[in-house]
Amino acid sequence: MSELKVNGARLWASLEEMAQIGPGVAGGNRRLALTDEDKAGRDRFVAWAREAGCEVSIDQVGNIFARRPGTDAAAEPVLAGSHLDTQPTGGRYDGVFGVLAALEAIRSLNDAGLRTRRAVEAVVWTNEEGSRFQPAMNGSGVFAGVMALQTAYDARDAAGLRFGDELARIGYQGDVPARARPIHAYLEAHIEQGPILEVEGKEIGIVTGIQGIKWFKLAVRGFNAHAGTTPMEVRRDALVGAARMVDAVDRVTRATRPDAVATVGMFSVSPGSINVINEQVSLSLDLRCPDGAGLSTLESKVRAACEEVAERMGLGLDFEEIWYAPPTAFPDPVVGAVERSAVSLGYTARRIVSGAGHDAKYLADICPTGMIFIPCKGGVSHNEAERIEPAQAEQGANVLLRTVLELAERA
Amino acid sequence: MSELKVNGARLWASLEEMAQIGPGVAGGNRRLALTDEDKAGRDRFVAWAREAGCEVSIDQVGNIFARRPGTDAAAEPVLAGSHLDTQPTGGRYDGVFGVLAALEAIRSLNDAGLRTRRAVEAVVWTNEEGSRFQPAMNGSGVFAGVMALQTAYDARDAAGLRFGDELARIGYQGDVPARARPIHAYLEAHIEQGPILEVEGKEIGIVTGIQGIKWFKLAVRGFNAHAGTTPMEVRRDALVGAARMVDAVDRVTRATRPDAVATVGMFSVSPGSINVINEQVSLSLDLRCPDGAGLSTLESKVRAACEEVAERMGLGLDFEEIWYAPPTAFPDPVVGAVERSAVSLGYTARRIVSGAGHDAKYLADICPTGMIFIPCKGGVSHNEAERIEPAQAEQGANVLLRTVLELAERA
Repeated sequence: MSELKVNGARLWASLEEMAQIGPGVAGGNRRLALTDEDKAGRDRFVAWAREAGCEVSIDQVGNIFARRPGTDAAAEPVLAGSHLDTQPTGGRYDGVFGVLAALEAIRSLNDAGLRTRRAVEAVVWTNEEGSRFQPAMNGSGVFAGVMALQTAYDARDAAGLRFGDELARIGYQGDVPARARPIHAYLEAHIEQGPILEVEGKEIGIVTGIQGIKWFKLAVRGFNAHAGTTPMEVRRDALVGAARMVDAVDRVTRATRPDAVATVGMFSVSPGSINVINEQVSLSLDLRCPDGAGLSTLESKVRAACEEVAERMGLGLDFEEIWYAPPTAFPDPVVGAVERSAVSLGYTARRIVSGAGHDAKYLADICPTGMIFIPCKGGVSHNEAERIEPAQAEQGANVLLRTVLELAERA
Repeated sequence: MSELKVNGARLWASLEEMAQIGPGVAGGNRRLALTDEDKAGRDRFVAWAREAGCEVSIDQVGNIFARRPGTDAAAEPVLAGSHLDTQPTGGRYDGVFGVLAALEAIRSLNDAGLRTRRAVEAVVWTNEEGSRFQPAMNGSGVFAGVMALQTAYDARDAAGLRFGDELARIGYQGDVPARARPIHAYLEAHIEQGPILEVEGKEIGIVTGIQGIKWFKLAVRGFNAHAGTTPMEVRRDALVGAARMVDAVDRVTRATRPDAVATVGMFSVSPGSINVINEQVSLSLDLRCPDGAGLSTLESKVRAACEEVAERMGLGLDFEEIWYAPPTAFPDPVVGAVERSAVSLGYTARRIVSGAGHDAKYLADICPTGMIFIPCKGGVSHNEAERIEPAQAEQGANVLLRTVLELAERA
């Protein structure tokens, strides 16, 4: 059993075949949730799962469960999966890797003729990306009970099409209740979508949790005046103030928590005319930190730094929290199982906190959950240029397989 | 003659009456060039000028010359004026004050029964603001020979209407050639459109010239990456870089030349999404300095500071000059005449450099030119809230009258 490994060539062939469905324009994929392309991807997965002997069931929100039964029918199953939908100009591996690695684990158990005590289920969660229907992750969100089924159904895309109607149209509105049932553990293999593993030359990321995220909306108010006739010393230039806040956010974050990140993504000026001093700047701020206390401290320091800039320059400042997702810590028994698997395989590995949200975030609310990261080239994701090597996919799937096996045998 | 003064009440009444033509929505004016409102304002001026005994002529680009003949028909005239068109939400005094102060000077010469050696002409230049037709100042520009008449005619407004057609439609396409003729001097009285005189408690600004202006377009290029998964130390965030450049522009300008100004007006980020590190920032830079050498030095220092930020952060930077208007220095004999007038009237005055462009900039290319500033409330202009007091208008017109008189008597 310590020699058990996946068939890397078969896994890679499946990844390549899935990438033919809903191709992008630059080597990636466009397989938006509940489109014909999503249906074709789901159909392919379901066919493969049936070929692997799985029982396939679909729940009311379109989540797909491909079950390989265990020897103990009463034991709670081990789930592993991710999503098949992509960003509009998405990569071939974001989500897909986790789904097909789970399928490959089942195939490999079949090849080895191993029966597990617990059932093993490969799962496809609906609409993880949220590119077509908002909010994102509503398949796992409804399943975990953090979102109402009707809310998911009533979401509309930019063309006004309803999630529920589109789900029925593609034939994936199942009759299994979309709600949590007893689950022994959930595992999600995923590309890192960041550069840390690649930079450090690590093959596996043992994910210990998902960062907490707070989003803020800032408005900086100065005074609109003539660029030529207003001396520097009497200006109240909202852009100069906002620029100093952007600089302060960067400096304060680095100084406070090297493992936290802070980003100003939206930034718009008014009036934005070449020869007028800007009166107002509106900006967004995305703060992330592995732990809640650290996030609070960081928020206080960043806020104080921005307020100090505003006060010194005589500017108005609104600093409003608009969203908070608390950090998720994965439990030690699952993290430990992932780590043992990586070590037993001789892979270089490090513990890592996920900077992005994943379906695992919602699953962690209802069952012991863990994640396995593999590097991706340059950390690039949500981009058709997203790349991994066949050996990296194989390594990640091997870790998933061994972890599934350990958890599926656990009492 | 040293007692000669304008009739302040009459000047104010004319300013009030003109403000009724093309009223704004907040106490100011909307009298865009070559609209029915502009025609009504011109008609009012022409009627007043004829009542004052002037010969009125209109040139091919719509500039209006109201001439009070001198005793020496062969002597070059003294011109004084400004413009009657306004910004879309403009003030009552920008331009209008200079036109009606010139008219009031003529009326006051009439009242005093004074004949001058040289003719005195009150002038209205077409389309100074450039709000409806670009470029701005094309009435004085064509007159001074820096712009072709046909270029002005062919300009179109946002609705596609042609300058030449609109000029004919309102009846102000005259037959006098729109080109410079021998002029002894040109004077323009104007509100400061900035806060310096008010802050220093000065009644009159003796304008020594117009600042040089350079416009630049900057593009800062970084790398687009995920806000959650990209550690701070590997980011190449174009917005953080651009923010540091905005801060550097402000600091370097203050440290280099306290009388220079620098403004970043346009500023747009891409992709501008809440959870994505910005890849590109495009921004404008407006640098102004009273002298050309100072402007060059400032440009070098600002450019070096921006390049240093880009290099330190691994960002790409384009720093492109897109427009240059060299500084204009008004000649001593005209500046001196303005100063003597202010002193003889007992007004508090200071020398000042105009931060904004004016028709006087083009006139300075073809004849000795000067300007007279009066304060405006809070330095606010290009805004319906633009305000001056009747006493300020009267003081500025008195200085204009005495200067006109001195110049019109000069050999």
